[in-house]
Amino acid sequence: MGATPRAVGWTGSAVQLLDQTLLPDQLASVEIHRVDDLVAAIRRLAVRGAPALGIAGAYGVALAIVQAAREGWDGSAFTAAVGRLRAARPTALALAQGVDAAYARVDDGLEAVVAVGHAIADADERANRAIGRHGADWILARLGDRPLRVLTHCNTGALATAAWGTALGIIRELHARGRVELVYVDETRPLLQGSRLTAWELAEAGIDYRVQVDAAAAGTIVGGLVDVAVVGADRIAANGDVANKVGTLGVALACAHAGIPFIVAASASTVDPDLPSGAGIPIERRADDEVLAWSGRLVAPKEARAHNPAFDVTPAGLVSALVTEHGASPPGSPA
Amino acid sequence: MGATPRAVGWTGSAVQLLDQTLLPDQLASVEIHRVDDLVAAIRRLAVRGAPALGIAGAYGVALAIVQAAREGWDGSAFTAAVGRLRAARPTALALAQGVDAAYARVDDGLEAVVAVGHAIADADERANRAIGRHGADWILARLGDRPLRVLTHCNTGALATAAWGTALGIIRELHARGRVELVYVDETRPLLQGSRLTAWELAEAGIDYRVQVDAAAAGTIVGGLVDVAVVGADRIAANGDVANKVGTLGVALACAHAGIPFIVAASASTVDPDLPSGAGIPIERRADDEVLAWSGRLVAPKEARAHNPAFDVTPAGLVSALVTEHGASPPGSPA
Repeated sequence: MGATPRAVGWTGSAVQLLDQTLLPDQLASVEIHRVDDLVAAIRRLAVRGAPALGIAGAYGVALAIVQAAREGWDGSAFTAAVGRLRAARPTALALAQGVDAAYARVDDGLEAVVAVGHAIADADERANRAIGRHGADWILARLGDRPLRVLTHCNTGALATAAWGTALGIIRELHARGRVELVYVDETRPLLQGSRLTAWELAEAGIDYRVQVDAAAAGTIVGGLVDVAVVGADRIAANGDVANKVGTLGVALACAHAGIPFIVAASASTVDPDLPSGAGIPIERRADDEVLAWSGRLVAPKEARAHNPAFDVTPAGLVSALVTEHGASPPGSPA
Repeated sequence: MGATPRAVGWTGSAVQLLDQTLLPDQLASVEIHRVDDLVAAIRRLAVRGAPALGIAGAYGVALAIVQAAREGWDGSAFTAAVGRLRAARPTALALAQGVDAAYARVDDGLEAVVAVGHAIADADERANRAIGRHGADWILARLGDRPLRVLTHCNTGALATAAWGTALGIIRELHARGRVELVYVDETRPLLQGSRLTAWELAEAGIDYRVQVDAAAAGTIVGGLVDVAVVGADRIAANGDVANKVGTLGVALACAHAGIPFIVAASASTVDPDLPSGAGIPIERRADDEVLAWSGRLVAPKEARAHNPAFDVTPAGLVSALVTEHGASPPGSPA
């Protein structure tokens, strides 16, 4: 994994992204020089994953400083650009947190703002490594120290974070300990972060996997083919309800029915203490054509409309353990 | 709906299929003159849906008689061709039933065999109309006589049957009574029978619908957007366990969690009295590239492998009612 380029970086004057819409066909970086281009890149998921969005948010404020100087923005133009960045996607807490932390240092100058982005990235990588260790410890203690069949949904790896990954970090750690037999990768419609990104990361790491349609997850789990499911989180309410990529709830329900552990892995900052329950988490609705068309070709009647929520909410009661950098605990307990 | 061509017909010397792989782009019929071409058409899902497969199986035996006469087959070539047809897809009981019923009349000649196909089709259409009435009665009696939000998975309409449909027949009947507000249509990966076929049938019928990715179903149901889910069945064990299109189990689990009815609609012949439970139902595994490629373009790493079961098994305990032409009853009770 050391060879994988970072999902997000700062060049000195621009934000550098690994364009994840091109994977697994191409591993290509793009330099972004305008805040609204970064907003567009975030919206089209060129960069995605809550932790990576936090880093992109902080570097995006640095980009706003550079662009403001270049284009002679006044204060209100600057504030408006930062506001557009902060609102580029509504569900993940990390994006707004990254923007806010960087914005608080604007008066200290560009380097101070860039340093916020670097610090978020460093802290995220350290958190991910700790999450991996705590998660692997928890799982092996409960399931026995043996090779396991693991199911995951969406992408929570190096591409979604500063490095290593959250749920995928646990899988990497289990693999490092020789305890992964096979990973079932939900393809994660509509944008296929599972088959395009997680499969690519697992292949790079030399971990055996099978891609399945999301609809197969329940049968795979209830049919006894899976020992444990691990997923990430975009936002966690104070009571432990988890917003994550659409389809996560179905995985959790199947795990509860089958009596196998359902693990949520996320940095402690993903918990929103101001939000009493998942009912208050804003769920992003995305464009119809993500569902209704493939590569520009319509796969539904011309007049069809879609229901396209990007996330769902899993009640805390279905979560066996929330694993953060501080350890594994039942969801909703003090972090 | 009167204008929709039949999914399967007999021309007098060939099997006629509406090629469902071309929908919703094209409404095109194909004439099939060789048994192995019919086997291939069944395998690639040009015709699919348990009831339609039963009719295709019976007409396929007629086709074998025509082809045997044309090509001078001996008895063992004839029997082998019928065997290949019978085994074209393993999960739906109806295909083998249709083949067997027609094969039993081979000594009576072509017209007798064709008449078996016609009789299966007529009986299926009558059954579907009865299923629609019984299902609508059951649902409105329990949920109140009001417009409902209905979720369905895969395609169970006129395209999957002789006409009208099973689960979609219930939706048609509810619509005829003015009791459908909206239908959530699971797209049904990998082959999109929901977005391609069910959406097309609903549009033709003037019923309002939204297509969603399969992974959205749990959130839609648990989030309170759905009043009732209705699905079909490919095979039902004596204890009421239901094999149906992969993803059905996830819908059932979400309905149980949300406390809304989960209805299975199928002709009584779908129940296999020789099969004590769902554990004995053979589940077809299909080709990796259905999951890993789209229109020939790979959407996963080159070396990726898939887990691609076409069906899953929903335990009887998750089924609120099994609706057949004889009425609605708890699953596993005598039909």
